[in-house]
Amino acid sequence: MGFAAGAEIERLVELLAKLPGLGPRSARRAVLTLVRNREGLMDPLSTALEAVRTKVRPCRICGNLDTDETCAVCRDPRRDPALLCVVEQVADLWALERAGVFRGRYHVLGGVLSALDGIGPDELRIGALVDRAKTQGVGEVILALNATVEGQTTAHYIADRLREAGIRASGLAQGVPVGGELDYLDDGTLAAALGARRALD
Amino acid sequence: MGFAAGAEIERLVELLAKLPGLGPRSARRAVLTLVRNREGLMDPLSTALEAVRTKVRPCRICGNLDTDETCAVCRDPRRDPALLCVVEQVADLWALERAGVFRGRYHVLGGVLSALDGIGPDELRIGALVDRAKTQGVGEVILALNATVEGQTTAHYIADRLREAGIRASGLAQGVPVGGELDYLDDGTLAAALGARRALD
Repeated sequence: MGFAAGAEIERLVELLAKLPGLGPRSARRAVLTLVRNREGLMDPLSTALEAVRTKVRPCRICGNLDTDETCAVCRDPRRDPALLCVVEQVADLWALERAGVFRGRYHVLGGVLSALDGIGPDELRIGALVDRAKTQGVGEVILALNATVEGQTTAHYIADRLREAGIRASGLAQGVPVGGELDYLDDGTLAAALGARRALD
Repeated sequence: MGFAAGAEIERLVELLAKLPGLGPRSARRAVLTLVRNREGLMDPLSTALEAVRTKVRPCRICGNLDTDETCAVCRDPRRDPALLCVVEQVADLWALERAGVFRGRYHVLGGVLSALDGIGPDELRIGALVDRAKTQGVGEVILALNATVEGQTTAHYIADRLREAGIRASGLAQGVPVGGELDYLDDGTLAAALGARRALD
């Protein structure tokens, strides 16, 4: 880059700029913020990053991230083991946990089927999911995949595999988001919301 | 935050979210990107952050950041020591260096005068600037401060101090930015551009 800042700073800017949501400009601002606030920000950030780097790994059961081999969700005896929620990424698991609306356990696929990217069933954790559902007394699998073409293709593929194994699969409802205004919704969402309309009691 | 991710990850998200340009959401995405790409991103980032944390310090002459006590710009014998460019922050110095349009040396103030925030001349590196200009054979000081009220107030204050010491001060030209369209410019810029109009040869 060459902005007279020394190799160490340029290297840090370069690496920070690779994070999603940051570019070269915001990475430079981030580094200056760090240098200006050593005790309050740079030192703790360095420590926290090192802790995550050395301690955090994927849960061997569900794929969530934790410092333990088995994550906090899988360890929690209050969570219903008969209800399994399948998500694409760890970020989706976190989103559901933030909402606090699901009391079962999870299974992180690690992506979606994509012929274009050469991602087939063997690249995802689908085999492990079917095994787990069959052997761990799972009664229902909720396929909470993104409402994209790839997400829904993957959901249908998994639902077929589970049906063969005699396990019930369900998907998330589609419709108008809470607080959503019709005027701002896309045609696909409007069509889905209209198609799945429900009787008002 | 509590999104079932373990204390280490939550701490890292919390610290990353304090960086400018990042919030909790993008900090979570950043952490997941790091965990997914350990060798390519998390390990080098941890190393780079540690290097900056332990090695980088302000240049004792100009205030730029470097691993050396005297920064690369101040060490460079090809840079004109008679021409001094005063900037508010290190980020401004970097911006000028990226543009590659200035071949003199710099002086970083570390801020601007602000009665509201209790920042007077003693909180900035103004005394050091005047001393440096008087004793180091500086012929002209360019006050490249932001075109804000505080920046211009600070520039006038410094120009007065330098005039007392018999040193010439100048400021950046104001006007239409290169590629700028009049229809999108604010009134202040238009007024400045009109007032400082120049003859076309």
